[in-house]
Order: sequence, then C-alpha cells, then structure tokens
Amino acid sequence: MTPKQMRITALAGGVGGARFVRGLLHELRAVRGDQETEVVVVGNTGDDITLFGLRICPDLDTILYTLGGGIDERQGWGRAEETHAVQAELAELGAQPQWFGLGDRDFATHIARSQWLGQGQTLSQVTARLAERWGLPGQGVRLLPATDTPIETHVVLDEAGADGSDAGERAVHFQQWWVQLQAAVPARRFTVAGLGQAVPAPGVLEALRTSDVILLPPSNPVVSIGIILGVPGVRDALRGSRAPVVGVSPIIGGAPVRGHADACLSAMEVEVSARGVAGLYADFLDGWLVDEADTGTVQTPRLQTRALDLRMRDEAGAARIAGAALDLAAELSVQRSA
Amino acid sequence: MTPKQMRITALAGGVGGARFVRGLLHELRAVRGDQETEVVVVGNTGDDITLFGLRICPDLDTILYTLGGGIDERQGWGRAEETHAVQAELAELGAQPQWFGLGDRDFATHIARSQWLGQGQTLSQVTARLAERWGLPGQGVRLLPATDTPIETHVVLDEAGADGSDAGERAVHFQQWWVQLQAAVPARRFTVAGLGQAVPAPGVLEALRTSDVILLPPSNPVVSIGIILGVPGVRDALRGSRAPVVGVSPIIGGAPVRGHADACLSAMEVEVSARGVAGLYADFLDGWLVDEADTGTVQTPRLQTRALDLRMRDEAGAARIAGAALDLAAELSVQRSA
Repeated sequence: MTPKQMRITALAGGVGGARFVRGLLHELRAVRGDQETEVVVVGNTGDDITLFGLRICPDLDTILYTLGGGIDERQGWGRAEETHAVQAELAELGAQPQWFGLGDRDFATHIARSQWLGQGQTLSQVTARLAERWGLPGQGVRLLPATDTPIETHVVLDEAGADGSDAGERAVHFQQWWVQLQAAVPARRFTVAGLGQAVPAPGVLEALRTSDVILLPPSNPVVSIGIILGVPGVRDALRGSRAPVVGVSPIIGGAPVRGHADACLSAMEVEVSARGVAGLYADFLDGWLVDEADTGTVQTPRLQTRALDLRMRDEAGAARIAGAALDLAAELSVQRSA
Repeated sequence: MTPKQMRITALAGGVGGARFVRGLLHELRAVRGDQETEVVVVGNTGDDITLFGLRICPDLDTILYTLGGGIDERQGWGRAEETHAVQAELAELGAQPQWFGLGDRDFATHIARSQWLGQGQTLSQVTARLAERWGLPGQGVRLLPATDTPIETHVVLDEAGADGSDAGERAVHFQQWWVQLQAAVPARRFTVAGLGQAVPAPGVLEALRTSDVILLPPSNPVVSIGIILGVPGVRDALRGSRAPVVGVSPIIGGAPVRGHADACLSAMEVEVSARGVAGLYADFLDGWLVDEADTGTVQTPRLQTRALDLRMRDEAGAARIAGAALDLAAELSVQRSA
C-alpha cells in the first residue's frame, strides 16, 4: 500500500503570501527533507485589472515570480533586472494610465496571458502554463486562482465637494486606491464586482477538502484572503475541512507588517490587531500565530495561539514561521485524533 | 480670395513607400521651400496581422517611424535603439510565433493600438493618434489607412506531399510567407480576406478626387499598392481623378530594388520589369519613372516615361526621385490644360 501523499493548501495574496510560501517550501524541502508533500496555493484574483487592454493578475504573478526566482526582491513584486521601454513609449503615446508601473518582462507575462485568455483558455489553464515557465510543478507546487470568473475589487471612497462638503461617494479599482492613492484616502467599503456569481476554480474546493493542513499566510485579511473567502463555496469548505486551519497574523503590535492592511481593516470597522484579524476567521480558524509583541492578546476557548517573532526578514525567517505553523497544525491534528 | 491649398496624395507600402515620402517631404519643404502643400499618404493595411493578441500594422508603422525619425535606418523597419526584453520573455513562456521580430518600443505601439481599437476607435482614429506622437501633422502629412475594415493578405502555396508529390495547396498569412519563409516558397496566388467588403477609410476617396498630384512610390505593386487598389472604390477614383498619376518603378533591370516583388509578380504571371509593373497600372497611370537601365523599355501611346537613377541611396536620393515625379506631374498638368 502506497502511503497517501500529504497535501498542504495555502490561501495567498501577493508579497506576504508569496514569501511565506517560499519559506514553507524551504522548510519542507531543505529543512525537513520532505520532497513529497504537495503544496497547493490558492491565489487571490480580486486585484486583477485590465490595463492597456491586457489582463494583469498582480498576486498570481508575485507568487510565480517569487517561487520561480524571478522576483524583484527589493520591491517584492515585478521582475528582477527589469527594463521599462514599453511603458516609456506608452507614455509618449499618451496611453493611460501611467500610475501602474509595468516592466518589459512583466508586460510579456500580461501579453501572453491576455493572448491565451483571448483564445478561450481559462485563467486556471493560463496560470498552469505560467507556472510551468517558473518551475512550480518541479517544486511540488500547484498554483490555482481562487476563481476563473473575472472579479475585481473596487473601493468606495468619500467624494469631497469643491467646498469640502460631503458630495457622496465614488468607486475606484482597488489598484488605483492601493497604488495611485497609496490607500491614503479613507475607504468607506469594498465591493467585489462579479464575486457573487464567481465559481471556485477547478481543484480549489477539492484541495481544501483533501488537505492535511490549511495555512493562511500573513496576507491582507480583507482584500487578499477576504476575497478568496468570498468566492461562494470556499468559506464553507474551510468550515467543513477535516484539516486544521492555521493562520499567521499580518498585524504586529497594531500595525501591518507590510502594505495597507490597517486602512482595509479600519474600513471594515475591525480592530487593527492580531485579535481583530483572528475574529474575521473565527468560524474556521483552529491555530493562530501571533508576534511576541502580541502575546496574550488573543484568547478564545477554541483557538490555539502561539507567539513568536513574525517578521519575515529573509527566506530562513519565513521558513521558521512556516515551520511553527506546521508544528501547530501537527499538534492540533494529534489533539483531534486523541 | 485665398489660394487653394495644394495636395499631393501618395499610395504607400512599407520601407520603399516610407523612404519615398520622406524624400518627397525633403524635396517639398527643404529644396522647394513649400511649407503649404499637404501630403496625404494612403497606407497599405493588407500586411496587418494579429500576433500575441495584438494588432500589428507593419506598413503604417514603418511610415510613422520613418517620417517621425524613430526608424531603424539599417533594417528599414522597427524602432531605432530597440531592445527585445518582451520577445525574449515571450519565448521563455512558449508564446507563439517567434518568427516575427518585435522590439519593446514597437510592442508599445501595438499595445496602444490594440487598446484603442478595443475601445471601439477605428484604425483611422488610432493611426491619427500615432501620427500625433510622431509629429506628422506638424510636417503637413496626413496618414490614412487604405481602409478601416480589417483585411489580411494570404498567400496560397503548393503543399508538397511527404514523397514530394503535389498534395494540393495551403494558405499562410502574408507575413509568414514574407518574413518566415522569405518568399522562397513559390506563391500560387494571393487572396485578401475581407477585401471585397472593405470600405475606403474616411478621406481616402476625397484625397484622390481633390489632389493635384497622385504619386505611386516604388512600393510592391502586388502586395502593397495592389492591395490599396483592391479596396472597392479606390481604383475607380484613380481612373476618374483630375490629377496626373505618376509612378516610380520598383523594378530596376529585372530585379526589385528591395524585398520580394519579383516573387509576387511571378505569382501573378506578370513580367518582372518596369514595363510589367506599368501594365498593372495601365488604366490610370499617366507618368512613369524608370531607371536608366530600363530606358526605352516602356513605350505606350498615353504613358509618359522618364528615365533616371532610381536607387534611393539616402534621403537626398529619394528627394531627387520625388522631385522628378513632381516635375513630370507638372508637365502632364500643363499638357492637359493646354
């Protein structure tokens, strides 16, 4: 009898999720010598945007480039050793918008993706082709978009009148709020076009149902993990999963490790804290890693919390955190079967 | 009473047409001090192709880049000081085809064009925006696509069986025959998808009707000028034009100056000579410039022929030829009004 292949599924946003998964792979393959366990990454597609007529999937690409060794390590997204001839010429042509920085190699990804989507391939199929280019199958990784249904996160903002009075509200694409406005304009709320009708991509629910461990990296709980959870069927699959669900807090001592999660949580009227984020996952979360700064702040009867240094300074740091998540998941599994 | 603005209309393919028009502008503006005469260029769109989901108009772009000073002078097409990061990455991704070389700056043109076409703009409108970027209006030039209707020239080739026997025929896109096969596989014939239903772009027929001079640069008579002439209404407008129509032979002493015009003429069973090409234009051509090597080879009762050195070695050489065409047109005009 062949031993059943182990499977870990992680829900991931962009930079934080990608770095966490890279650490997880380092922990599994290099530290623990486990070449067998499959890692399924379910990526957020709510950030997706069509610019210059090309379909761009920032979170999926960040995961591909990070795991494939092609990422710009300094900024955390985009390609290393990137050039910008295309964007410079688009600026000469007056093509809009110019606030979203795209390098030449990155453009090639979006051109190929758009071509393949235009030929009728699904985002899952396109993502699998891109994953081949970046060697994910060889690392035992399957990257799945949360959904093949095009969805887009929009941010509803206050619209100030010319005299500063309240002039209602306006909605902008998430990327415009995040990149162009740097999330500095308060969000009233988030809406996700297409989410209600979205269908989980092939393999997503099956991965959640059959995994031995489910991990929530320190991704944005609202606009990354929150969007994946909003795809009809995903949250129910997590609630009903036999695997322990272990998360890593993206908030350390009241501030996000990276990005603008605080602005997102505030819009939801959720406390910007490890406790606040755990509350968003309360219906399915089993284990929760918080930073040492937050020791003792999260206490619920059914949630097992562990405190450790949560700053992912490098790949080894991310591996250490991923290892702690796996250890906690193992503890929880033992408790369940006891 | 304001003097009527003079207008010259040229039908142009790619490299030869672009260099001729650049010479024409030099002759008009620098040599003759004429800053007023409008030059309308009707560009071939039969070479257009969709690659990587992007709409590419090789002849229009060659004209834009040449007149705008952005052309790669050595190869005659594409952008100067070009880089190729996008295409290299597309190759990594296995995106097809790889036989059509596209630089990064060139890609930006195709991305912007495709975006604007996708927004519902016509090719004429898109071309006008690109012409702004390249400063054509400031040079008194209007570049019009022959038609806004998407058309594509296909080449029907012999299909050899595995044993070398005749296995029928196959059709490939003109660019594949021209670029990938280097026109080395004999063409049986050319077909132009969409041509029968094509409508001349706004301004094309009006330019032909109201021009004072109509010029045919030494472009390919079959797959460049021939395609423009095939747009319903264009040939009739030339036949009925009040302006003298003066052409420049693309064949010198039995060989094309550039490109594979010989292969195209052979497929049409037309003699590869200045006389053969003049025959293709017999129903509307009034004046014909041939090379000194072809002096006396073209003699018809109604066609006025002049012989001169037709090699466009540089901009001054092209200007000299354009000047000879203008001189012949002036002679023909005087003869008509006499």
